[in-house]
Amino acid sequence: MTTPDYDRALIEQALKTARTRTEKAMTRFFDARRETGMDVLYDQISDYPFRVGKGLRPALVYAACQGMGGTEAQAENTATAIELFHNGALVHDDIEDISDFRRGDETLFRRHGVPIAINTGDATFVFCLSLLLDNVEQLGVRKAMRILKDFERLSRESVEGQAIELDWIHNARFDLDSEDYLRMAYKKTCWYTMIAPLRLGVVAGSGPSMVADLEDALIEVMELGYLAGIGFQVQDDLLNLTADEVLYGKEISGDLYEGKRTIMLLHFLRTAPKRQRTRAIKLLTQPRAEKEPDEVRWLLQAMHEAGSIDHGRELAQDFITRALTFEAEGLRFMAETRHRQFLREVLKYVIARLK
Amino acid sequence: MTTPDYDRALIEQALKTARTRTEKAMTRFFDARRETGMDVLYDQISDYPFRVGKGLRPALVYAACQGMGGTEAQAENTATAIELFHNGALVHDDIEDISDFRRGDETLFRRHGVPIAINTGDATFVFCLSLLLDNVEQLGVRKAMRILKDFERLSRESVEGQAIELDWIHNARFDLDSEDYLRMAYKKTCWYTMIAPLRLGVVAGSGPSMVADLEDALIEVMELGYLAGIGFQVQDDLLNLTADEVLYGKEISGDLYEGKRTIMLLHFLRTAPKRQRTRAIKLLTQPRAEKEPDEVRWLLQAMHEAGSIDHGRELAQDFITRALTFEAEGLRFMAETRHRQFLREVLKYVIARLK
Repeated sequence: MTTPDYDRALIEQALKTARTRTEKAMTRFFDARRETGMDVLYDQISDYPFRVGKGLRPALVYAACQGMGGTEAQAENTATAIELFHNGALVHDDIEDISDFRRGDETLFRRHGVPIAINTGDATFVFCLSLLLDNVEQLGVRKAMRILKDFERLSRESVEGQAIELDWIHNARFDLDSEDYLRMAYKKTCWYTMIAPLRLGVVAGSGPSMVADLEDALIEVMELGYLAGIGFQVQDDLLNLTADEVLYGKEISGDLYEGKRTIMLLHFLRTAPKRQRTRAIKLLTQPRAEKEPDEVRWLLQAMHEAGSIDHGRELAQDFITRALTFEAEGLRFMAETRHRQFLREVLKYVIARLK
Repeated sequence: MTTPDYDRALIEQALKTARTRTEKAMTRFFDARRETGMDVLYDQISDYPFRVGKGLRPALVYAACQGMGGTEAQAENTATAIELFHNGALVHDDIEDISDFRRGDETLFRRHGVPIAINTGDATFVFCLSLLLDNVEQLGVRKAMRILKDFERLSRESVEGQAIELDWIHNARFDLDSEDYLRMAYKKTCWYTMIAPLRLGVVAGSGPSMVADLEDALIEVMELGYLAGIGFQVQDDLLNLTADEVLYGKEISGDLYEGKRTIMLLHFLRTAPKRQRTRAIKLLTQPRAEKEPDEVRWLLQAMHEAGSIDHGRELAQDFITRALTFEAEGLRFMAETRHRQFLREVLKYVIARLK
């Protein structure tokens, strides 16, 4: 199976533009709210967002909004809020997963301790709400309220998805099939990474004449976001197991140290001979610090040999192929512009990317 | 100085009614959203709210709303959201303070671990937003949006106040005066405990004719909430140092073990002879588990002898006296009903209560 090629120049340009706009918007926003004596909080909130990420989520909001005929300005608060939400989630996730590094530097809780990191995440979520309330002036109360409703949904899906995954870890659950995984990832990843950015962009950019069909359009977008979101997450997990460490920027096999249930790991545990399965589960349930690197290397090798890595690649490829088909059929309400072209190229990018 | 007496029957009845309504509303709300397989999350979110608290915050929302001529139904979503916010904050605070017990039982993070507790707090905050979005149907979009704006403010003040306090702890800061304390408590406690419940109730219950003066009324309410909130917090800290353990339901002197900067402790550190001050700071900066109970008892006794406890009592009394005067002058926009009477009695209750 071949990885589809994508228009690198288009993708890189759009992501860079979105990152730049989002950083400017965050700086303006925080500076306006930075009260005397509160520098410490605002410095902490700004930490992760200014360790440069991909900027995928804000780029999706901008593209969906402009694809509907809207302006960059109409998308700005929402794109910035989505990027902040992502960063707040990372701050809390890093505590929950006891991760040491994030985007090439110490995680926030390693730097400032758990209490400050919890509060920084909480504060980051508060500022998502602040930004979305500012939408009233830019988009009117009706659209602003529609966006808030979707933001509530993405937040709810995210905490539910996270609850499912934490429950698996807490109860040492490994008897899971692909359906379990897909439901968890739909909630935990697809909603805030793909579905909501696309939906929120469509709402922000839709003209008054679109109103009648808006809810239908949002359902189409939800399906597309699901397919693309799973492709994105499985590719993320594949990179964690197989990427070039320098290019990828994270520790390879970190997910095995963490015991993370991925499509590949679950495939291995379902198909491996009993002895291998027992050995793997023993390793996976050990505390991170006690895991022997040799055992982790053995598990990764065994997963390769069992075809688990190939299984993940095929599944990601299948979801993206379906997403591309769906895009052609389901996004007809969006005119053919370079913004829609970006959305299409993103579908290929999510599984062809190397980091 | 004498403690003012308050109408116990009125207070107890109103708190109980508010608690009952809030519990029913939460049950209905969670049951409607409880999705197959998500029981684990909803059970965790419901844990603290159903360990019976005082119900002070929802009671304030109901009273302010009904005092403006509104109905219980108009206050319900908002009262429930405020109570949920309080419980979400407790879940995260308990991790940050490494507290073992809450309302007579293990803290959530002791029971389920830090990761699940962080996510449970996050989820609780999401449901505040869900409830407040439901206000659109009950109160119309204008009032619902006004309430969301105040909710954003209370959330922002809370995380800022928390950031100030965590920064003091992280940097072992004890060179603080009453002004520092009052600013922190205004943000961390007054807003979500007094100011916002009163303001949100006023917005929810105000008739269309009130609109012109609404923002003026909300400023009056903010001042009242500040005075009452400081009275409440200082009394809370006094109870922690001096209450009857059985009646109070929490560990006495827990705040000294925690090293919490209270009005009383800061007074002691400002006024004590150098040797006592050095001994106290040495104790306060030790990890909780290493603190010698004898040393904690010594510090408490020294604070009594230095007049620090009396200083706290006088300050709380002074704030409540000012709140009572302010109530008579500043709340004239609210008719004299049993709801306004409750608000007045609450001012006395906050410093006369024994738990």
